[in-house]
Amino acid sequence: MEVVQTIAELKSIVRKVKSEGKTIGLVPTMGYLHEGHMALAKKAREENDVVIMSIFVNPTQFGPNEDYESYPRDLERDRKIAESVGVDIVFAPSVEEMYPTDGGIRIHAGRQATILCGASRPGHFDGVLQVVTKLFHLAEPTRAYFGQKDAQQVAIVTTLVRDYNFPLEIRTVPIVREEDGLAKSSRNVYLSVEERKEAPAIFQSLKLAKEVFLSSHDAEKATRAAKEYILEKTKGRIDYVELLSYPDLTPVDETTEQFLLAAAVFIGKTRLIDNIIFSKEGEMKNV
Amino acid sequence: MEVVQTIAELKSIVRKVKSEGKTIGLVPTMGYLHEGHMALAKKAREENDVVIMSIFVNPTQFGPNEDYESYPRDLERDRKIAESVGVDIVFAPSVEEMYPTDGGIRIHAGRQATILCGASRPGHFDGVLQVVTKLFHLAEPTRAYFGQKDAQQVAIVTTLVRDYNFPLEIRTVPIVREEDGLAKSSRNVYLSVEERKEAPAIFQSLKLAKEVFLSSHDAEKATRAAKEYILEKTKGRIDYVELLSYPDLTPVDETTEQFLLAAAVFIGKTRLIDNIIFSKEGEMKNV
Repeated sequence: MEVVQTIAELKSIVRKVKSEGKTIGLVPTMGYLHEGHMALAKKAREENDVVIMSIFVNPTQFGPNEDYESYPRDLERDRKIAESVGVDIVFAPSVEEMYPTDGGIRIHAGRQATILCGASRPGHFDGVLQVVTKLFHLAEPTRAYFGQKDAQQVAIVTTLVRDYNFPLEIRTVPIVREEDGLAKSSRNVYLSVEERKEAPAIFQSLKLAKEVFLSSHDAEKATRAAKEYILEKTKGRIDYVELLSYPDLTPVDETTEQFLLAAAVFIGKTRLIDNIIFSKEGEMKNV
Repeated sequence: MEVVQTIAELKSIVRKVKSEGKTIGLVPTMGYLHEGHMALAKKAREENDVVIMSIFVNPTQFGPNEDYESYPRDLERDRKIAESVGVDIVFAPSVEEMYPTDGGIRIHAGRQATILCGASRPGHFDGVLQVVTKLFHLAEPTRAYFGQKDAQQVAIVTTLVRDYNFPLEIRTVPIVREEDGLAKSSRNVYLSVEERKEAPAIFQSLKLAKEVFLSSHDAEKATRAAKEYILEKTKGRIDYVELLSYPDLTPVDETTEQFLLAAAVFIGKTRLIDNIIFSKEGEMKNV
């Protein structure tokens, strides 16, 4: 496995790989890898000749009061994990390498970014689209891998690829969870022992809301049940619990085929997100 | 030469060409081809294994009161001209083929798009960036060809390619002119006989302004001289005459190495643009 830190090196490798007619799987990450990232890399390994994993804490997707500075970083640890799951190339550029110039051109996500995490993180998805576009152009992947934990990100990046004709396929993997149901996240390291005990209530609340919705067909009743559950079981502050159609992210109605139940909750100072996707028959799509 | 109208056909051709390790030159046009487009295609022919020319009057780069509906179109004529200059593939999609879906994601050009043509055509360069991004992803060119007549477009597209790491090179060709100096343009067909006689005054005014600037180093004096000349020689209405650094498009100062003198003038109802690029020694860069 090779770790490259410059765009020039990456492009030279990509050019060679492409000239040999090989396929490339790209796994974009912000590092501090956990089993969720490993599942992405393993799937990329199965489906492609060459696997590139990017590790880059992208400043443009963090708001001014968010955790860009404190976001956990450990390249040496990540290097070993990436190697263990068969990654061929780790691309770990500096901020200066990724953003040496700025002519002011911006990609703005649309309606899909005004809700859920987009409502409380203005500009977040614009930053995601910026870095994803750059990584797609640099790694020229045949397939790019994203976790369903970031369901809204998957929906928006899929829209980008579709509407702007990127020559690649978006592939997703289900959420990987701890034994008690907490979704794996690099941010889980922020949690105190006490907070860690409360955190699985988020997933529990989503499962509860799903049952409420399937029996009542009342979205408001379902999300209210989840909110009440979270407030009862944790000392957390709810950012949102929402039930939407997926992947459109529009309000549900009788025609909705696939549902997204998504939550963002501050447990202490740590903002955790989770979601479940299910069919109208109640079949879970991402667990 | 082949004319393809669907994205599926184009992608299948591009895949085959790429798998053979061949280079692709893309010439994006809105059709109604003239010698300017032919110069682009000829340069693409010299430098690449396969030449793709797109012919698409892109609605998203026209304002509501502009000439989208009346823009001249003649695919049969264009087909013959493209074939005569060695184009391999003409890609002529319908609007529905190019924009079947809209998830609301938009690319916004920055400061470079707020001046010159951007000031009087709000959203124009956003539409250009949208269609250019799509065409780059569809044709996957090694090199893409743009005319220096649209100097601001060249500057902005070059910024897009640089800041978003598109894996391709932007190539330009100088303005092609009529014998009397009028820059070739598909819109010249709109001109009446009387207007056609006046139109070369735009280029004359730019050459005059260049001489005024080189002797006075006074940008305001230079552009004023051009404006006075245009108003004296034509019945036209001036949109702008500006002297800027190139390719930054910032105000000129003692450090400026390359100058853009650009004008947009309504001759009757027809908006014509022209420009000259020159060094501080006065050497012309695009004629």
